[in-house]
Amino acid sequence: MQFTAQQIGSLLNGSVDGNPEVTVNKLGKIEDAEEGALSFLANPKYEQFLYDTKASAVIINESFIPTAPVNTTLIRVKDAYSAFSVLLETYNSFKLNKVGIEEPSFIHPSAKIGKDVYIGAFAYIGANAVVGDNSKIYPQVYLGDNAELGSESTLFSGVKIYADCKIGNKVVVHSGTVIGSDGFGFAPQADGTYTKVSQIGNVIIEDEVEIGSNTSIDCATMGSTVIRKGVKLDNLVQIAHNVEIGSNTVIAAQTGISGSTKIGEHSVIGGQVGIVGHITLAKGTQIQAKSGINHSITEEGKRWAGAPATAYTSHMRSQVIVNRLPELERRLHELEKKLLEQTNKNG
Amino acid sequence: MQFTAQQIGSLLNGSVDGNPEVTVNKLGKIEDAEEGALSFLANPKYEQFLYDTKASAVIINESFIPTAPVNTTLIRVKDAYSAFSVLLETYNSFKLNKVGIEEPSFIHPSAKIGKDVYIGAFAYIGANAVVGDNSKIYPQVYLGDNAELGSESTLFSGVKIYADCKIGNKVVVHSGTVIGSDGFGFAPQADGTYTKVSQIGNVIIEDEVEIGSNTSIDCATMGSTVIRKGVKLDNLVQIAHNVEIGSNTVIAAQTGISGSTKIGEHSVIGGQVGIVGHITLAKGTQIQAKSGINHSITEEGKRWAGAPATAYTSHMRSQVIVNRLPELERRLHELEKKLLEQTNKNG
Amino acid sequence: MQFTAQQIGSLLNGSVDGNPEVTVNKLGKIEDAEEGALSFLANPKYEQFLYDTKASAVIINESFIPTAPVNTTLIRVKDAYSAFSVLLETYNSFKLNKVGIEEPSFIHPSAKIGKDVYIGAFAYIGANAVVGDNSKIYPQVYLGDNAELGSESTLFSGVKIYADCKIGNKVVVHSGTVIGSDGFGFAPQADGTYTKVSQIGNVIIEDEVEIGSNTSIDCATMGSTVIRKGVKLDNLVQIAHNVEIGSNTVIAAQTGISGSTKIGEHSVIGGQVGIVGHITLAKGTQIQAKSGINHSITEEGKRWAGAPATAYTSHMRSQVIVNRLPELERRLHELEKKLLEQTNKNG
Repeated sequence: MQFTAQQIGSLLNGSVDGNPEVTVNKLGKIEDAEEGALSFLANPKYEQFLYDTKASAVIINESFIPTAPVNTTLIRVKDAYSAFSVLLETYNSFKLNKVGIEEPSFIHPSAKIGKDVYIGAFAYIGANAVVGDNSKIYPQVYLGDNAELGSESTLFSGVKIYADCKIGNKVVVHSGTVIGSDGFGFAPQADGTYTKVSQIGNVIIEDEVEIGSNTSIDCATMGSTVIRKGVKLDNLVQIAHNVEIGSNTVIAAQTGISGSTKIGEHSVIGGQVGIVGHITLAKGTQIQAKSGINHSITEEGKRWAGAPATAYTSHMRSQVIVNRLPELERRLHELEKKLLEQTNKNG
Repeated sequence: MQFTAQQIGSLLNGSVDGNPEVTVNKLGKIEDAEEGALSFLANPKYEQFLYDTKASAVIINESFIPTAPVNTTLIRVKDAYSAFSVLLETYNSFKLNKVGIEEPSFIHPSAKIGKDVYIGAFAYIGANAVVGDNSKIYPQVYLGDNAELGSESTLFSGVKIYADCKIGNKVVVHSGTVIGSDGFGFAPQADGTYTKVSQIGNVIIEDEVEIGSNTSIDCATMGSTVIRKGVKLDNLVQIAHNVEIGSNTVIAAQTGISGSTKIGEHSVIGGQVGIVGHITLAKGTQIQAKSGINHSITEEGKRWAGAPATAYTSHMRSQVIVNRLPELERRLHELEKKLLEQTNKNG
Repeated sequence: MQFTAQQIGSLLNGSVDGNPEVTVNKLGKIEDAEEGALSFLANPKYEQFLYDTKASAVIINESFIPTAPVNTTLIRVKDAYSAFSVLLETYNSFKLNKVGIEEPSFIHPSAKIGKDVYIGAFAYIGANAVVGDNSKIYPQVYLGDNAELGSESTLFSGVKIYADCKIGNKVVVHSGTVIGSDGFGFAPQADGTYTKVSQIGNVIIEDEVEIGSNTSIDCATMGSTVIRKGVKLDNLVQIAHNVEIGSNTVIAAQTGISGSTKIGEHSVIGGQVGIVGHITLAKGTQIQAKSGINHSITEEGKRWAGAPATAYTSHMRSQVIVNRLPELERRLHELEKKLLEQTNKNG
C-alpha cells in the first residue's frame, strides 16, 4: 500500500507543508526512518532529528515552529502523538485482519464456532469447545474439549488451551503460551516417591487480558486459577495452580507466582520476581525486578525490593552498604586495634 | 454425567445422611462449591465451611460429629480424603481417556505404534519412532526419528521430542516442553566468533517422571542427559546438556541447571534457583527458592540458601543483618566518634 | 551404519594399531562408551580411561605412547580432537539431512520456496513468505506472512516466526522459540486500566545466529529488534522489544533483557541475569550469572556481578563479608560494651 502526504493529511484532518504528492509506504521512527517512511514528532527532545530525517513525511503538531530548514514534508495535525497512534492501530488491524477457515484444520463436530472467525491451518478445536464471534485462532493452536474462547479474542500460532478452560472477550495470547497445564501437586510417600495429586480445576481468563509468549498458567487443583479483567502478563511468566491475579495488574517477564497466592488489583510486578505460595498481596503493590516475596503484604500501594523483600527505600539503603562492606570491616578492625591500644595504655 | 448421593455412597462403600436422591455433576472445594457439586471435608480446620456450604453433598469421615445444623447431604466413609482422591482420579482418567488416531496425523510407515493409543490430529511420529501401548499423544506433538515413548505415557499438545530421545513408561509431559534440543556448546575462536560443538547425544527420561509446561531439556553433547525414575519437574525449567537428575527429585518452576551437573536423588529444589555446571549435589539436598549454587555439595540432606548459597540457617541470620546494615553503620560511626573523643581526652 | 576401524583410519588419514577389522556403529565418551562405540582421547587427564574403556576403537594423537596395556584398537591421527569433531559433524549432518516437502503442509501460493529445502508436515508458510535454498523447516513450524528465512538455516519443530520478521543465513532456531511476539507496551490510563501500544515493528536475526528452545524475542514497537551476526542465545531467554544484541555475543539460559537496551558485541552474559531497559552495555562486557544490571556500562571488557551489579571482584569481596555479618555484629557489640566500660572507668 502506498499513500500520498495529501491523502494522509486528509485522513487525519491535517494540513500539508511541503510536497503533497510525496508517497509513503511504511511507518518509521524519526531517527532511523528510511525514504518512503511516514514518521512523527511529538516529544521536543527529538526535534533535532527532524532536520535530517530521511522520512518522506512527518506528522507534527500544528503549533510547531521549526528552528532550522526542514527537508521533509510536514503533515500538521492537532495532536501528532495520537494521530500517529491511530495510524499504528489502523496498520495493525489491517495486518491482523484475517477471516475464514484454512484447511486442513480440525474442528470437532460438536464445537460451536462464531461468526467471522479466523481459524488457521492445523488448528485443533476440541469437542464442545466454543469460539466467539470475530475471534482469531492462528495456525497450530490447540483448544481442548469444552474450552471456551470469547469474542474478538486472538490466540497466536501455537497457543495451547487445555480442556475446560474459559477465555473471555478481547483477550490476546501470544505464541507458545500454555493455559491449563496441571498444577505441580505431588504428595510425598513414606518410601520417598511422590504420588500425583489429580488436578481437575481449570483456568479462567477474564476480558481484555493480554498474555505474552511462552508463559505457563496452570489449572487449579479444584476450582479455578483466575486472571482478572485487564491483566497484562509478559513472556515466560509462571502462574501456578489456584493463583488469582487482580484486575489491571501488570507482570513483567520471567516472574513466577507460586500456588494459591492472590495478587491485588492494580499491582505492578517487575521481571524475574519470585512470589511464594499461599500469600496475599494488597492492592496496588509494586515489586522491584528480581525481588523475592515470602510473606503477605497487607498495606496497599507500597513498593518492595530485595530477596527476601523489604520496603524499597530501606532495601536500597542496605544495598549501598553491602557494596561498602569491605570498608566497614576495615573500620571495625581499626576500632578494635585502637581500643586495645587504649586499654593497654590505660589498663 | 450426573449421580445421586446414594450412587456415590454405594461406590465408596459409605452411608448417606440426608437426601439420598440429591444429584451432583461436578467436584468442588467445600468453601466455594456451587449447587450440584460434590465436596469433601477431611481437615478439621475447614469444618466451619460445612455449615453453610452450597455443595449438594459432602464426603466426610464416618466418625465426624457435627457441632451445628448441616443443610447438605453427608456421605460418610472410612477416610474422606482418600475417598475423594479416588473420585478425582476417576474423574480425570475419564476426562483424559482418549483412544484412537485422529486425522490428519503423520505416522511414518516405519514407526511402531502400540495398542490402544491416542494420536491426536497434526501429531508427527518420525521414522522408526516407537509409541508404547496405552500411551496418549495429543494434537501437534512431535516425536522425532528413532525417538521412543514407553507405555501408559502422555505427551500433551505441542510437546516436542527430538530424534533419538527415549521416554519411559507412565511419563507425563505437558504442553510446550522441548526434550532433546541442542546443548549450548560453542568453542570460541581466535577472531572472536564461535564454532558450534556438534551435539549428538540424546535425553533419557525414566519411568514415572512428570514434566510441566514450557520446560527445556537439552540433549547431551555425547551420551545422554538423564532424568531418573520418579523425578517431577515444574514449568519453565532449564536442564542443560549432560545433566543427570537423581530419582524422586523435585524441581520447582524457572530453575536452571547448567551442563554436566549431577543432582542426587530425593533432592528438593525451589523455584528460580540457578546451579552452575560440572558440579555434584549430594542425595537429599534441599535448596531454597532463588538460590545460586556454585560448588559441589557433598554432605547429604542439608538445606541451602542464598546466592552464592550457604547453609540455610546461617544465610537467614546474615540476611536479617543485611536489612539492619544502615543501623550497624550508624553504630560503627558512633563508636569511632566516641573513641576519638576518648583518645583526645586521655591523649 | 557400521564401519571397520580400518575404514575410519583411511577416512581420517590415520593408521591403525590393533584389530583393523573391529566394527563400530556409534560414537561415545571414552569413560562410558559401550562395545561397538568409537571414542577419542585428546586430553591427557583422561588417559587412565583408555586402559579399561569398552569402546571398540579409540582415535588418538599419533604421538601418544601408552603407559599400560591397551585392549582396544587405536586409530592414530595428527590431531585426535579435531578428527573426532569432523566425525561428529559428519554424523550430525547425516542425521539432519532432510530434504523434500511432507504432506500435509500449508504453503501459501505467494510464498517463495528455494531449492533443496525440507518442509515438514503441518508446517505453515504464510503469504509472501520466503524460504532460502537448503533450509530446513521442521514439522509444525509457523512462518508468518512476509517473513523471510535465508539459506542453509534450520527451524526445528514448533518454532513460531511472526509476520514480517527476517531471519538470515545459517541460522538455527530450536523448538518452542517464538520470534516476533508483541512487545510489552501498555499505556496506563487515568482509570487504572491499560491501553495497548500497537507493536508494528519486526525482528531481524542476522547470519550464523543460533537460538535455543523456548526463547522469546519480541518485535519492535516500530523499527526492529536486532540480533546481530554470530550471536548465540540459550534456552528460555527473554529479549524485549527494540533490544539490539551486538555480534558474537553469548547469552546463557533464562536471562532477560528489557526494552530498547543495547548489548555490545563480544559480550558474555551468564544465566538468569536481568538487564533493565533503555541502557547500553559496552563491547566485551561479562556478566556473572544471576546478576541484575540497572545502569549503562561504558567501559569495555569489564566483568560484573551482583544485583544491582558492581565490579566482579568487589562484589565477591562484599559477598564473603555478608556471610560473616553475624560475626561482624558480635564484634561491633563487643566494642560498644568495652568502650562503655572504659568510659565508665575513665569517665
